[in-house]
Amino acid sequence: MTVQDHPRKPLDRLSDALADEMEAVNALIREKMASEHAPRIPEVTAHLIEAGGKRLRPMLTLAAAKMLDYPGPWHIHLAATVEFIHTATLLHDDVVDESRQRRGRPTANLLWDNKSSVLVGDYLFARSFQLMVAPGNLRTLEILSNASATIAEGEVLQLTAAQDLATDERIYLQVVRGKTAALFSAATEVGGVIAGAPEPQVRALFDYGDALGIAFQIVDDLLDYGGASEAIGKNVGDDFRERKLTLPVIKAVAKADGAERAFWSRVIEAGDQREGDLEEALRLLSRHGAMEAARKDALAHAARARTALEALPPHPIRDMLRDLAEFVVSRVA
Amino acid sequence: MTVQDHPRKPLDRLSDALADEMEAVNALIREKMASEHAPRIPEVTAHLIEAGGKRLRPMLTLAAAKMLDYPGPWHIHLAATVEFIHTATLLHDDVVDESRQRRGRPTANLLWDNKSSVLVGDYLFARSFQLMVAPGNLRTLEILSNASATIAEGEVLQLTAAQDLATDERIYLQVVRGKTAALFSAATEVGGVIAGAPEPQVRALFDYGDALGIAFQIVDDLLDYGGASEAIGKNVGDDFRERKLTLPVIKAVAKADGAERAFWSRVIEAGDQREGDLEEALRLLSRHGAMEAARKDALAHAARARTALEALPPHPIRDMLRDLAEFVVSRVA
Repeated sequence: MTVQDHPRKPLDRLSDALADEMEAVNALIREKMASEHAPRIPEVTAHLIEAGGKRLRPMLTLAAAKMLDYPGPWHIHLAATVEFIHTATLLHDDVVDESRQRRGRPTANLLWDNKSSVLVGDYLFARSFQLMVAPGNLRTLEILSNASATIAEGEVLQLTAAQDLATDERIYLQVVRGKTAALFSAATEVGGVIAGAPEPQVRALFDYGDALGIAFQIVDDLLDYGGASEAIGKNVGDDFRERKLTLPVIKAVAKADGAERAFWSRVIEAGDQREGDLEEALRLLSRHGAMEAARKDALAHAARARTALEALPPHPIRDMLRDLAEFVVSRVA
Repeated sequence: MTVQDHPRKPLDRLSDALADEMEAVNALIREKMASEHAPRIPEVTAHLIEAGGKRLRPMLTLAAAKMLDYPGPWHIHLAATVEFIHTATLLHDDVVDESRQRRGRPTANLLWDNKSSVLVGDYLFARSFQLMVAPGNLRTLEILSNASATIAEGEVLQLTAAQDLATDERIYLQVVRGKTAALFSAATEVGGVIAGAPEPQVRALFDYGDALGIAFQIVDDLLDYGGASEAIGKNVGDDFRERKLTLPVIKAVAKADGAERAFWSRVIEAGDQREGDLEEALRLLSRHGAMEAARKDALAHAARARTALEALPPHPIRDMLRDLAEFVVSRVA
């Protein structure tokens, strides 16, 4: 996941608008990743947390709270919670995917070992729960513990569904909510809840995060096959080589004839990939308009994100969030 | 960890006394380990949860609440929470230790894979947090989220301290609290809190769980070197071959002369073990009275557990808990 690396401009403006709050979040993160007894914990955590991620998720919490004139202080804890959940997930993801690089640096499982990544990830999960208890707000606890369960469930589902051609768009959406959207929507929703926003605004914040996360993930899928127009920053075909059933492929499989189905079954399910297969896959995606259809889905989710914001009061940060939703899909627009 | 397998008799009596409550806990566990979307989750979980563990930890929560005449219903949720945290920990432990057997059956990481164990463990952690939010009691949330952090911190500490001769008894206790005692003491403490017990009783329940857990772990260490008297059910020397710095070894290292230190450094730190080294280790443990000293520590912790119970009102379950503390150390008494 490299959500943080792409949508630079609106994120930079959000960063500026939330600089003081983000400073407080960073201080809290540094404080809570310390461990008197086990120095391995801050070592591993710092490697990941200080690797220059854009902190998109905690920023969503801060943005939601600030937009609703919440005076603080608990949005800081909730934002740090969100970042800890995210970091724990990354540590475990890299073990599960046997990744060697993240954000251009060697992964923790490579620098230390899988054991450290598993256990430090567990520590960060536990820390995130301590952090989310601090505000004493049961509703935000429910939202964040539910999001954690959705994330973990999505990851397990991906494990079993990733290379199974029976995976349809419904399952794809569940996986994407787990991988990306559940934490986005929880991040925005808790910002609204802690600010005491009325129910329709809380719901709108959830919808915004959900739609933004899904749009982002579909764009990521598209760029992996070269994008609808041009590729930026991703190696074309990585998902194909890793046999991932992403949205364009799911759409093409749904329209496949017998021979095409046999092709997808061979390259994705059996993993038997040969010279020229990526080109054949691209031809099939194009033949069935799968890229174009996935692109339309991404744009529709981005539009849904922007529409959701209309239920919220006018605010400069609301405008930045709207721009962010546009920016996320601008790479395939 | 095989805490559940040894202290049969008092546990059986507790089991009988808490049969109805335990039935409700088991039903809740089955309900919460279901996953509509990811059938891998209940498969892996059932393999472990239904493997016939004695459910000692949830029983401690139920015992504490029942002893204090708590009418329910939230002790059921808290007990299920405790079991989920324990199960998640076991799944991750088996990945970290590369274990192949648990409770006489192949481990989940062997039957499925490490990925499933990591991600299903995460799911159970998340579920445990959902469960602990349900009673709406912030104090039990704090206790259980703190225990989770202590457990994870202890595991990381063990990773780095396990083969380091600088590990002293203070660090050992931190590791043991993480491995065993933190969940025991949280289990008993939340039972008291949810029952609305006065502060001295809550503290006594914490102390009981803490002391019971530590006594248990020291006994386990002793049995691995043949026990103070006789060995039951453990292979002598497993910890030695795995180069674990357990309490008897820590005590012997503290009294070692230069040549002995070189021996421990070779077999534990460097892992260079030869024919006759286990016998030499046993000789050194005996020479410095390390087994006897560790045995005395175990008995002292068991006595501390029994003493703690005196702050609680007379109840048949209190007697069973006292017998349990005695039984745990009876193998080395």
